[in-house]
Amino acid sequence: MAQITGPLSDDAGKIVGEALQGALVDLIDLSLVAKQAHWNVVGPHFRPLHLQLDELVDIAREHADTVAERAVALGVNPDGRAASVASASKLAQPDRAWIEDGKVVALFTDLLEGVIARMRERIAATGEPDPVTQDLLIAVAQDVEKQHWMFQAQR
Amino acid sequence: MAQITGPLSDDAGKIVGEALQGALVDLIDLSLVAKQAHWNVVGPHFRPLHLQLDELVDIAREHADTVAERAVALGVNPDGRAASVASASKLAQPDRAWIEDGKVVALFTDLLEGVIARMRERIAATGEPDPVTQDLLIAVAQDVEKQHWMFQAQR
Amino acid sequence: MAQITGPLSDDAGKIVGEALQGALVDLIDLSLVAKQAHWNVVGPHFRPLHLQLDELVDIAREHADTVAERAVALGVNPDGRAASVASASKLAQPDRAWIEDGKVVALFTDLLEGVIARMRERIAATGEPDPVTQDLLIAVAQDVEKQHWMFQAQR
Amino acid sequence: MAQITGPLSDDAGKIVGEALQGALVDLIDLSLVAKQAHWNVVGPHFRPLHLQLDELVDIAREHADTVAERAVALGVNPDGRAASVASASKLAQPDRAWIEDGKVVALFTDLLEGVIARMRERIAATGEPDPVTQDLLIAVAQDVEKQHWMFQAQR
Amino acid sequence: MAQITGPLSDDAGKIVGEALQGALVDLIDLSLVAKQAHWNVVGPHFRPLHLQLDELVDIAREHADTVAERAVALGVNPDGRAASVASASKLAQPDRAWIEDGKVVALFTDLLEGVIARMRERIAATGEPDPVTQDLLIAVAQDVEKQHWMFQAQR
Amino acid sequence: MAQITGPLSDDAGKIVGEALQGALVDLIDLSLVAKQAHWNVVGPHFRPLHLQLDELVDIAREHADTVAERAVALGVNPDGRAASVASASKLAQPDRAWIEDGKVVALFTDLLEGVIARMRERIAATGEPDPVTQDLLIAVAQDVEKQHWMFQAQR
Amino acid sequence: MAQITGPLSDDAGKIVGEALQGALVDLIDLSLVAKQAHWNVVGPHFRPLHLQLDELVDIAREHADTVAERAVALGVNPDGRAASVASASKLAQPDRAWIEDGKVVALFTDLLEGVIARMRERIAATGEPDPVTQDLLIAVAQDVEKQHWMFQAQR
Amino acid sequence: MAQITGPLSDDAGKIVGEALQGALVDLIDLSLVAKQAHWNVVGPHFRPLHLQLDELVDIAREHADTVAERAVALGVNPDGRAASVASASKLAQPDRAWIEDGKVVALFTDLLEGVIARMRERIAATGEPDPVTQDLLIAVAQDVEKQHWMFQAQR
Amino acid sequence: MAQITGPLSDDAGKIVGEALQGALVDLIDLSLVAKQAHWNVVGPHFRPLHLQLDELVDIAREHADTVAERAVALGVNPDGRAASVASASKLAQPDRAWIEDGKVVALFTDLLEGVIARMRERIAATGEPDPVTQDLLIAVAQDVEKQHWMFQAQR
Amino acid sequence: MAQITGPLSDDAGKIVGEALQGALVDLIDLSLVAKQAHWNVVGPHFRPLHLQLDELVDIAREHADTVAERAVALGVNPDGRAASVASASKLAQPDRAWIEDGKVVALFTDLLEGVIARMRERIAATGEPDPVTQDLLIAVAQDVEKQHWMFQAQR
Amino acid sequence: MAQITGPLSDDAGKIVGEALQGALVDLIDLSLVAKQAHWNVVGPHFRPLHLQLDELVDIAREHADTVAERAVALGVNPDGRAASVASASKLAQPDRAWIEDGKVVALFTDLLEGVIARMRERIAATGEPDPVTQDLLIAVAQDVEKQHWMFQAQR
Amino acid sequence: MAQITGPLSDDAGKIVGEALQGALVDLIDLSLVAKQAHWNVVGPHFRPLHLQLDELVDIAREHADTVAERAVALGVNPDGRAASVASASKLAQPDRAWIEDGKVVALFTDLLEGVIARMRERIAATGEPDPVTQDLLIAVAQDVEKQHWMFQAQR
Repeated sequence: MAQITGPLSDDAGKIVGEALQGALVDLIDLSLVAKQAHWNVVGPHFRPLHLQLDELVDIAREHADTVAERAVALGVNPDGRAASVASASKLAQPDRAWIEDGKVVALFTDLLEGVIARMRERIAATGEPDPVTQDLLIAVAQDVEKQHWMFQAQR
Repeated sequence: MAQITGPLSDDAGKIVGEALQGALVDLIDLSLVAKQAHWNVVGPHFRPLHLQLDELVDIAREHADTVAERAVALGVNPDGRAASVASASKLAQPDRAWIEDGKVVALFTDLLEGVIARMRERIAATGEPDPVTQDLLIAVAQDVEKQHWMFQAQR
Repeated sequence: MAQITGPLSDDAGKIVGEALQGALVDLIDLSLVAKQAHWNVVGPHFRPLHLQLDELVDIAREHADTVAERAVALGVNPDGRAASVASASKLAQPDRAWIEDGKVVALFTDLLEGVIARMRERIAATGEPDPVTQDLLIAVAQDVEKQHWMFQAQR
Repeated sequence: MAQITGPLSDDAGKIVGEALQGALVDLIDLSLVAKQAHWNVVGPHFRPLHLQLDELVDIAREHADTVAERAVALGVNPDGRAASVASASKLAQPDRAWIEDGKVVALFTDLLEGVIARMRERIAATGEPDPVTQDLLIAVAQDVEKQHWMFQAQR
Repeated sequence: MAQITGPLSDDAGKIVGEALQGALVDLIDLSLVAKQAHWNVVGPHFRPLHLQLDELVDIAREHADTVAERAVALGVNPDGRAASVASASKLAQPDRAWIEDGKVVALFTDLLEGVIARMRERIAATGEPDPVTQDLLIAVAQDVEKQHWMFQAQR
Repeated sequence: MAQITGPLSDDAGKIVGEALQGALVDLIDLSLVAKQAHWNVVGPHFRPLHLQLDELVDIAREHADTVAERAVALGVNPDGRAASVASASKLAQPDRAWIEDGKVVALFTDLLEGVIARMRERIAATGEPDPVTQDLLIAVAQDVEKQHWMFQAQR
Repeated sequence: MAQITGPLSDDAGKIVGEALQGALVDLIDLSLVAKQAHWNVVGPHFRPLHLQLDELVDIAREHADTVAERAVALGVNPDGRAASVASASKLAQPDRAWIEDGKVVALFTDLLEGVIARMRERIAATGEPDPVTQDLLIAVAQDVEKQHWMFQAQR
Repeated sequence: MAQITGPLSDDAGKIVGEALQGALVDLIDLSLVAKQAHWNVVGPHFRPLHLQLDELVDIAREHADTVAERAVALGVNPDGRAASVASASKLAQPDRAWIEDGKVVALFTDLLEGVIARMRERIAATGEPDPVTQDLLIAVAQDVEKQHWMFQAQR
Repeated sequence: MAQITGPLSDDAGKIVGEALQGALVDLIDLSLVAKQAHWNVVGPHFRPLHLQLDELVDIAREHADTVAERAVALGVNPDGRAASVASASKLAQPDRAWIEDGKVVALFTDLLEGVIARMRERIAATGEPDPVTQDLLIAVAQDVEKQHWMFQAQR
Repeated sequence: MAQITGPLSDDAGKIVGEALQGALVDLIDLSLVAKQAHWNVVGPHFRPLHLQLDELVDIAREHADTVAERAVALGVNPDGRAASVASASKLAQPDRAWIEDGKVVALFTDLLEGVIARMRERIAATGEPDPVTQDLLIAVAQDVEKQHWMFQAQR
Repeated sequence: MAQITGPLSDDAGKIVGEALQGALVDLIDLSLVAKQAHWNVVGPHFRPLHLQLDELVDIAREHADTVAERAVALGVNPDGRAASVASASKLAQPDRAWIEDGKVVALFTDLLEGVIARMRERIAATGEPDPVTQDLLIAVAQDVEKQHWMFQAQR
Repeated sequence: MAQITGPLSDDAGKIVGEALQGALVDLIDLSLVAKQAHWNVVGPHFRPLHLQLDELVDIAREHADTVAERAVALGVNPDGRAASVASASKLAQPDRAWIEDGKVVALFTDLLEGVIARMRERIAATGEPDPVTQDLLIAVAQDVEKQHWMFQAQR
């Protein structure tokens, strides 16, 4: 069976592979939680939030795919299965219930702050072993930090 | 806080809500497993499978959104969180490893057979309490059964 | 002069024709009232409501055309003239005045509830005499019930 | 509650507001009658007329929206409700029946002649109090007069 | 060699397979006869008919593909070969000659009436064994019945 | 009744008309057989073949229309009816059954070889009597010969 | 000043230059006469003719540009000035008046017959000295002969 | 035969009709002269001028169509035949020869100056009898004066 | 060096040139202030305002370009440099700080009122010397007054 | 009132905030000066420069928006007001007059050289405190340096 | 291993194969040289040449692909490798240096003249053995000769 | 003659210029070899490989253009001539013959491994002298490494 090999040494590959797997979990779970809120949000600000959350889903899905394919290109198997995401994710989870618009804003402001902190650690960790991966995580951070501002701005 | 109410009686709402939640879990997990295979497939048939799995992801995501929004329109909170999907899903999960192309075909032929069987039960269950939901699940079944054929055909 | 004839018996045609004409009146008036609110809404939520009401207008116009053309295909003359709509419509009418955003939400939550109830009666009535018409009314109900949720959600 | 105010004096606003409301009624009813004929026309020229009437509907709807939003921008509430249109409209109404193609041509040649005459009065009335509104009604007249030629041409 | 299997029992599969094969023959032949008329029509109404017949071809081709792929998804081999269509089709065939526009209208009014009758029988037959197929045939009927009106309307 | 006349002499018209009718039969039957295989193909190469066959269908349909309209422009009635195609076609017909991917490749390699040979005879025959028709058949040959290569290449 | 030179000998260039200039005059005048009729046509078939004439204008304009640019590429100055077209054109000219639809059809059937005859002479004349020009005129002839059929067909 | 009548009195119609016919001649000849230069221009600035002249052709053609259709809508027959344009046009005509880029700029700077002067007379003349026509000629002037600047700017 | 000259007399040119320069300053500064608010707005209505302000930027930029190019076409140098805009603008400037959503609405309601008043003076001033410029400023006023309503409506 | 906070420490935030504000001033003024030249350029190379300057405007506007939104995401208020730009900008300003094409090329070659030097300082300054901002400024530099080449190349 | 066979005799195949391989070398090298000049051109006409050269690249690449695929369809292996192109090409090569705009024009006028001469020989050679290939080379010649004019015109 | 100068010191410019020229050679030759294989590949996996190779061509061409234009922006002449590419390229060259699908996969897996290694050296070399160039080469590496995975995956 084909084995995918990448250009990194084993040590570099290990560090970078962990950073990418961590980013993948963050991004998949972000897409799931944002969809959950997209459906269950209520309140006078329903419509703008409903639309903004779908933008966030699109951003998270697109970056998740890039991140996972980067892992594969380095010979690392990405793991985006529901159970893996559920057990590894550090994102706070909303209840299965209606969520008021103000609480959605607060929830995502917090969630994104955590994602940002972890992405910045990954950027720091990958710069030396693989600048290509670092560049890709910088692009993730730029989008996530922009979303973070937008949720903060509407508190 | 706003309460969403739909046109169904409590009994009808309960049956239909369960059918929709079941369909949602099937469809979200289908999208996650298909992405997992999209990334990890290897073998001479890599490229056509890689592309077909992304079509399957698109179909699953689009129907998942319609199904969840239908639940909301009936006043039922859909639950698409990673942990809920992980614990409720009946789809077989691939290992975190490279998956040979032939095994991908076999895996999805089986997975989709299970999804089809459950969708048909939901179609039967919802026809009387809510023909609108039934119609929507029929559309899901049509697409899933077409995918099932296409995976079978390439065994 | 050409006479359009359809595939239904006289009895079936009469039941289905009435269902379609009723749906047509509901949908045309929905498009007119939604435009009225689109223009006259005021309040801090002006912009999202202004945009959402235009989406509702588009949905109502498109379904109205399909419903009327279905009537013609069955040999029944649809009636979408202003006077016919004005006298037959059961939709509450707003005053000629500015309408506060919260009142728009309440008005359309109510209006749509009535439309939904009548559509469901028509779905029940047409299933036996003409499943084609029923299928079309189910599609109307799906969209209208989704809009109903969205107005409810922003109360 | 927000009050919309525009740049015109009270006198100017009154004249212009009446012109715009009159134009709105003409245009909404034109869209409704054109749809009515679009559905009920029969005869060997069915298809070109069926298509042309839908073009007329599009023109009427687009101008109606511009006209109504112009009224709002001047602080005047537009009134596009079915009953208001039905009672104020001066357009001849077809019966609820099949309409032969030749009669459709004759009906719209006449209808549009009336609309044109009223639009030209409104253009004359608004030039002094509000050239912005006049410019907008000139654009309506240009399109309506072009349609008038096209219906005449096929008699 | 791969065998495609579907979710239906043998009895259900047989009924549904026959309905789909019948629909396929109707739709392929409809596309061929409509092309034949598209090319050979003459008379003052040439252009609108020439264009309308190509719309009919598009509708017939698209539904034919859906119907055949539905059969495959159920494990039934669709048969769209020229000889099979020629021998099984019940559509009246025009001569190889110019066809006057009025005769084209009459021919297709009749042809479509037959197709509609057969589609309605198939809708009735498939509802119980396979609601997915029924739903698909209902969509065919809606389009075909709309075309039937449009040909009738221009007699 | 209108008679279409073209610029060719009777003799030239006869030769060219036969060439065009022959090409029309080849192209319509090619589209039907390619659809048949598009639906019934099985095997590990299912997906690329399924897609390529649909490209072939598109090419065949587009050229068939051009060829038939060329015949009409020369005053010759094209004949694309199912029975005419079935009796005149020289294309080998697959059974009504699943077709293995390798056999599809072999079948179309052979089918296209025959079509090419006949097209080249028509190109030779029409150059003198009608270079316009010849040019059109050259375009058909270019596309068909390209398809022939592509099927050969995957043996 | 730049002199454009092409690949042809003087003799060949002269023959081909005359063919192209003749085609240019035919095509520009065809576009002007078709626009004239597009504006002045009346009668029950107004709309389809009005649209068809604009298609003819588009075809004539596009080929005129290609023909003129081909002349330039051969070092020949094309002449598309109004006076040159007016004096050299052999197309019958309609009066400045309304033109009944039937007369439009007759006029263009005749006009196009003349254009076709002249194009075929040019095709014959250019094959030996410049096959590139011939190929381009063959494309003109194909489109013009198709239009000729379509006008004939609606007599 | 149909007679097109417009909303203007005879006197107003005569003034406006002459203005529109004059504008039509200017615009058609502008399109022909610009094409002539588009083909025959030479010099180091060939490419930008070649492209700009085609923009001018597009502008002239589009306005010519609007102007002519406005005349028709007023019941006046527009005359865009080559001989009418050739005899009535006041535009200087280039020789049938290569034209140096600098001379193209000078020629069009002059040509457009004349067109502008005549359009402004027509704007002045039509304001009172028909503001709709005036508005349309103002739009012509705006585009033509912009082109005039652009040719001047590259002297 | 090229001098651009336009069709106006010196006196007319001076009046019109000042009107256009004034409009240019208003529109460029409107685009800058709207971007400033687009970035710095905060509050629960963040998202709809953020989007609406970008629409306003687009409108202001597009009209600024048309206004400046109109000035050039009249031989007047437009001045859109930062210092010129900063010194000539009459628009109130927000501080460099976060701006609450309600204050954004109030700020733009006021700003636009001033722009409208100045545009109307320019419309009055330019009608006699240059109706082309007036028409263009009327289009600006229509868009600006519509934006004014929309900001008012959400107070 | 909402306070936007970003992931950087105070020291890092200050350095990065200044770099972003400096870039914003450069980019907004670049867009204003480029528009100024887009309108006032004259000379034989008018058209290519007129178009190229608009490309430069688009590039400057797009990067300005990204840069400003990055500042906001870090909790820093961007300042793009006319007076701030006018006083902080280091770009040489053209006079309010026609500008010859050669001088435009020289002016922008110089202007861009200055922008490049400042951008490179900002890239150096931000790499350590915020690689996300650095990455974004690198993208600005790439586009600006490409424009610099293109202006140099046409001297 | 698959052997691709085409419809030509050995002799015909040899002649046509050589013509196609020659054309392929010309077209690939044309694309490489045009890119080389696209990057290295300098001078006041930089921008129009830079853009035109990219158009030439697109034309050369597209024809190269068609030519190579035609060779394959005839069973001949096309050779587009760098060394093959470098050794077989007859195109003059520019130095690795800046190239003044006037020299670019002269270079490509010459280069294209050579390509044209060789293409015309190939057209002459292929007409008898394979009219399909000839037709394809005629299309190449038309585009190349048009480009030749355009470079000549700007000397 | 214009000399392009960039922002780098001579030493930095030399290092970066060599990196860019090396990357250009790799990318142009990659595009040529991929086209060669696109045409000459045979075997059961023909179609997916044929398509994938064209994607690789597009990627290589697009990056080649960016890389070359980056060199120019730094004042370095890129060299993309056939002979330069042929002599400098380190890519293994296939024979002029049919290439089996499996060998294509192996060939490109190897080729891309070499390209990746060289790109990574260039990324390391350019980070200090020019982070803008480094960023651009990182983007090249990301795409090339993704392609490398995809070829490996189908072994």
